[in-house]
Amino acid sequence: MSPTPQWVKNLKPTPPQGTDLIQSERDKSKINVEKLSNFLFTKEVLERQDRVLAILQAEKVFDKSQNYFDGRVDKFKTALARAKRMRQLQVKHKWTQEEYLMANELVSEPGPYGLHASMYLTTLRGQGTPEQQKLFLEPAENYKAIGCYAQTELGHGSNVRGLETIATWNPEDKTFILHSPALTASKWWIGSLGRTANHAVVMAQLIIGGKPYGPHPFVCQIRDMKTHEPLEGIHVGDIGPKFGYNTMDNGFLLLNKVKIPHVNMLARFSSVDPETNKYVKPSSPSLIYGTLTWVRSTIVLQSGGVLARGVTIATRYASVRRQFSDRDAPADAGENQVLDYQMVQYRLLPLLAATFALHFTGKAMMGLYQDNQKRMNSDAGQASNTSRGAGPEETHSGSDLLADLHATSCGLKALGSTTAVDGLEMCRRACGGHGYSSFSGIGSWYADYLPTATWEGDNYMLTQQVARYLLKSARAVLKGDAPNNDTTRIFTTFLQKQDMGAAHDILGSDSDLVAAFAWRTSFLTFEALKHRDVEKNSWNSLLVDFWRLSTAHSQYLVVKNFYDVLQSESLRYELDSETIGVLHKLFRLYALDTLEKGASEFYSSSAVTVRQIQLARTKSVMKLLEEIRPHALRLVDAWHFPDWQLDSSLGRKDGKVYEDMFYRASELNPLNGLTIDPYPDNDVLVKRDETANFKSKL
Amino acid sequence: MSPTPQWVKNLKPTPPQGTDLIQSERDKSKINVEKLSNFLFTKEVLERQDRVLAILQAEKVFDKSQNYFDGRVDKFKTALARAKRMRQLQVKHKWTQEEYLMANELVSEPGPYGLHASMYLTTLRGQGTPEQQKLFLEPAENYKAIGCYAQTELGHGSNVRGLETIATWNPEDKTFILHSPALTASKWWIGSLGRTANHAVVMAQLIIGGKPYGPHPFVCQIRDMKTHEPLEGIHVGDIGPKFGYNTMDNGFLLLNKVKIPHVNMLARFSSVDPETNKYVKPSSPSLIYGTLTWVRSTIVLQSGGVLARGVTIATRYASVRRQFSDRDAPADAGENQVLDYQMVQYRLLPLLAATFALHFTGKAMMGLYQDNQKRMNSDAGQASNTSRGAGPEETHSGSDLLADLHATSCGLKALGSTTAVDGLEMCRRACGGHGYSSFSGIGSWYADYLPTATWEGDNYMLTQQVARYLLKSARAVLKGDAPNNDTTRIFTTFLQKQDMGAAHDILGSDSDLVAAFAWRTSFLTFEALKHRDVEKNSWNSLLVDFWRLSTAHSQYLVVKNFYDVLQSESLRYELDSETIGVLHKLFRLYALDTLEKGASEFYSSSAVTVRQIQLARTKSVMKLLEEIRPHALRLVDAWHFPDWQLDSSLGRKDGKVYEDMFYRASELNPLNGLTIDPYPDNDVLVKRDETANFKSKL
Repeated sequence: MSPTPQWVKNLKPTPPQGTDLIQSERDKSKINVEKLSNFLFTKEVLERQDRVLAILQAEKVFDKSQNYFDGRVDKFKTALARAKRMRQLQVKHKWTQEEYLMANELVSEPGPYGLHASMYLTTLRGQGTPEQQKLFLEPAENYKAIGCYAQTELGHGSNVRGLETIATWNPEDKTFILHSPALTASKWWIGSLGRTANHAVVMAQLIIGGKPYGPHPFVCQIRDMKTHEPLEGIHVGDIGPKFGYNTMDNGFLLLNKVKIPHVNMLARFSSVDPETNKYVKPSSPSLIYGTLTWVRSTIVLQSGGVLARGVTIATRYASVRRQFSDRDAPADAGENQVLDYQMVQYRLLPLLAATFALHFTGKAMMGLYQDNQKRMNSDAGQASNTSRGAGPEETHSGSDLLADLHATSCGLKALGSTTAVDGLEMCRRACGGHGYSSFSGIGSWYADYLPTATWEGDNYMLTQQVARYLLKSARAVLKGDAPNNDTTRIFTTFLQKQDMGAAHDILGSDSDLVAAFAWRTSFLTFEALKHRDVEKNSWNSLLVDFWRLSTAHSQYLVVKNFYDVLQSESLRYELDSETIGVLHKLFRLYALDTLEKGASEFYSSSAVTVRQIQLARTKSVMKLLEEIRPHALRLVDAWHFPDWQLDSSLGRKDGKVYEDMFYRASELNPLNGLTIDPYPDNDVLVKRDETANFKSKL
Repeated sequence: MSPTPQWVKNLKPTPPQGTDLIQSERDKSKINVEKLSNFLFTKEVLERQDRVLAILQAEKVFDKSQNYFDGRVDKFKTALARAKRMRQLQVKHKWTQEEYLMANELVSEPGPYGLHASMYLTTLRGQGTPEQQKLFLEPAENYKAIGCYAQTELGHGSNVRGLETIATWNPEDKTFILHSPALTASKWWIGSLGRTANHAVVMAQLIIGGKPYGPHPFVCQIRDMKTHEPLEGIHVGDIGPKFGYNTMDNGFLLLNKVKIPHVNMLARFSSVDPETNKYVKPSSPSLIYGTLTWVRSTIVLQSGGVLARGVTIATRYASVRRQFSDRDAPADAGENQVLDYQMVQYRLLPLLAATFALHFTGKAMMGLYQDNQKRMNSDAGQASNTSRGAGPEETHSGSDLLADLHATSCGLKALGSTTAVDGLEMCRRACGGHGYSSFSGIGSWYADYLPTATWEGDNYMLTQQVARYLLKSARAVLKGDAPNNDTTRIFTTFLQKQDMGAAHDILGSDSDLVAAFAWRTSFLTFEALKHRDVEKNSWNSLLVDFWRLSTAHSQYLVVKNFYDVLQSESLRYELDSETIGVLHKLFRLYALDTLEKGASEFYSSSAVTVRQIQLARTKSVMKLLEEIRPHALRLVDAWHFPDWQLDSSLGRKDGKVYEDMFYRASELNPLNGLTIDPYPDNDVLVKRDETANFKSKL
């Protein structure tokens, strides 16, 4: 690129400047941003963010200026360098797990140590015996061995029971033989496997004496510890580029009769007795059940923050950007601030409401999960102390709560990640043409987050689990032997009032608004139950009904959780009444907008009348948009994203949108180092200028 | 990458093989694929496709095997080499415009000559005088000059009147001075400008004697014809990477008082008289109006085909992929073909129906446009022959039709491209985890197509134009002075029957189904009219209503066009009754599914009853899914995409999904040429193996 001429350097955007526009936008609201941030995240977490951010920004390897330009190979190299440095910093600063995770969040890209630091270590900790932990976990924790978790196969995604990789117990020399019997058995999508890991936990079908015992975890070394070359009988590599996530080396792995010792089968829950050659059954499968619930609850909590990045960028840009004059305005009026357009508000502000709704719901889920873990641990302790002395009722109630949490986490994972994914794309489009530029910062974030809708349970598949649980609860309520929890309580209420009708005052009463959502869930559940149990319809013929039911139920939970936060004492203690008032409006916007979009289920269940729904849209929602609009910018500020994290021209906190777009294009873009020959008949295609100031040309 | 060992080469997927599955899927239907293809595209077009495909496939530069791996710079270099070769082939084979466009469609990536070959040449042809065409068009047509069309600016997208670049007439030396007065005046997003073009048509505000005359087109040379360096006073470059479209060099351009001669203002419609220094007014602005209509009609037609690529890939993969057993099936049953799942059918088959619906609608639009152009040309001819002799009625009806077409094209452009964009992403997700791999072929196609939702009129902005037209028509109907066209006819019917109610038999009668859509449009139009004219609501407060109205109206048009095709004689002549029967089911699926998803508007307008909508979903739609499912594969086959065009592992016509995924990852993936050092404390990061068989390591 030729150097930028002085006359270009002198140019500024046409006034009003973005900095002024965004400041006057902030002046429209009195929300105390700092207090709201503290309420959302706690002061401790925000201080941690500042501390870790300062460390990262001082490191050259974390400089983000070439992120949007690099191709796959360079992306990966840089990501690996960053992962290494991150590990060094973790050691140097004695970072806690929270600090390490915070650093990763700020860097905001998946890294090649990702699956080592999460699934490999977690699996060894959770499923290894003390002997195995000494052998495998210790070197892994010290990064002397780098591992991954190899479950999914080329021919099998979600269905673990369908895995084809086999581990055959060889009684003669007390080893397992890991083998991929077909091409479809190739491990696939395995994070950190492609180029990085030298170990893998391989999920394989255990075979003893010709009999299958289902999938089990085996530790397998796959690459030489010195040369990093694949070991004999192992074919391993990266699976190629993806829509996003290209800083990660998702890999494939084929095993050709690879022998591993007995100690490599992770044996905390089940094992093979090397003396008798017999299978030892798992002791407590429900703990694994718990891990999945934990992972999904995390996804729910994150979904609010994931979406909030897009909403922050789009809202800030809509405050700076002006386009067209108002049709009703006088001819000489300037162009309108984009955030003033009703259509833009209608697209962005319900998403803004959703960020808070999902955040509060995720926090509540994590709380419930932790309470239940404590309770189960103390139950388990009591049980072992008294030798089966715990009453059946207590055990029952503990596992009931876990079943409820499990189903809840499935449905909310699907709703939360779908809302975030679709919402991010809506934010990108709300930025108009510039939303398509990489410098918007939304596209790559969206592309990296996208698989969340598919992994840890495909969002459509998961809805079946929710429906199964709701049907089971409804049957129990009808039989009269249901546990007492929120789900069975709303079903009972529905059955009691069903004949009288509902008459929820959704426009006047918050609790009625929540109750209308509960009513819809209950109605859809008993409808589905009738289809399945009375009309004996096939499971497959009800999948669309189940998907609707799960979505309805999850929306009820989000609305209810938001409502509960508004009733909480901590809210009143930490926030002033103006901020609480705006949060209340966000609650109503989320609920009424969701209700209106699912209108036909609400009226056909008689939860509300057709007239009420019409009023909800034409009056309430539109009025709420107007009322929330002046607070929008401060509300996104409260999410507290550093500019460094967002890495977005459009989402800059200071409003210098156009300066930043131009700087990145004109000063950072390596394509401008090419001078080409434009004529079709000339053979010489391009010449690359390797220096910053390019002069050469061919 | 180490060479693939023999034991890996021996591996096959677990049976049943994809080839067998996809063949047995094809055997389920008797649709005559060839006849249906001919009906969709004509035999002539399909033969053209074969002919051009054979030429392209024989050229090394069009080899696609590295497309998914290349970074931005390499992508662009390759795309430029391809553009050059394409031009050479065009000359060599004396390709017609249709053949050249077909070649571009098959290559399926935007190329650096794109805006030269379209907008630059078109603008010179349409807006240049004969003298200007000799001067600028001739060298451009021979690729001696390469141009682009520079309208959009950094601070101004859709709003042409807000452009900041100025062209000041200098009476002293009879020149224009092109100037960018601010950073936001920088031209931005200009295709082919970044690295390729040496000329641009610059849209700039014309200033004569200090007075502004609005935006006009000026030809400006921007780079040296030999060195390709930017000329004095010009700062030009590529705007950087985007979410997609990275084979194209969208550029920026700043002009510092650049002087161009008088002849460089394109003067066919308006000009500056160099003697009097006076502005000469445009003669026929409606021709430009017509061009936009043409562009949008093309987008409507293409939207069916764009979506069909995703549907083809997802449907083929869903025929090969098996996942989980049916819950109601016996325990030893194998895994289910994914296409058998109701939820998958519910996601894919309405999109399959939409591909046909949009294709037929686009074709009808193009037909109407061409009829109208002929008519206007003959009117114009008559008018000039008889010197204002054409009756006012005829002129009125010609321009009325154009106004109708304009509004129709706006609404359908928005609906068609939104359907295609959202549908492609739904197809990608329906492919599960593998949909995220670049080898699915959907992601990059989606990313490249995405801007269509924003350009040629943002899909949300456009809906205002539709609403404005419908309100105007409704006012005319109420006044009694409306032209006789389809829009005014459905309004008249609505007003006549409004009091009696509608009672459309959507489940029994096709024409009633179409009428229900017409009814909804009419209802929403008169509602909006009341809000605007009676209640005097602001335009801005009605934008959401207008967006709903436009969508409703466009859906009516699509349903109606599909219906009309089913009534046509050519259909009965070209297709057998089984195929017609399946097309009829697709029509009903598209209409009923659309109706059900917009349920609340249909019942609140009294177009149908609540009970009918419930039946539409639970009975009709679900039954149609079952009935269409066996024909799905042949229906996508009829779209006739060569494998070379799709470039998709999942969408292979022969069903060899897993072999192809594995081959691309294991044999083509350059990341596997890197061996890394996995340990965090080692400085040396990676070593790249430049040979195919990598041995080195650090």
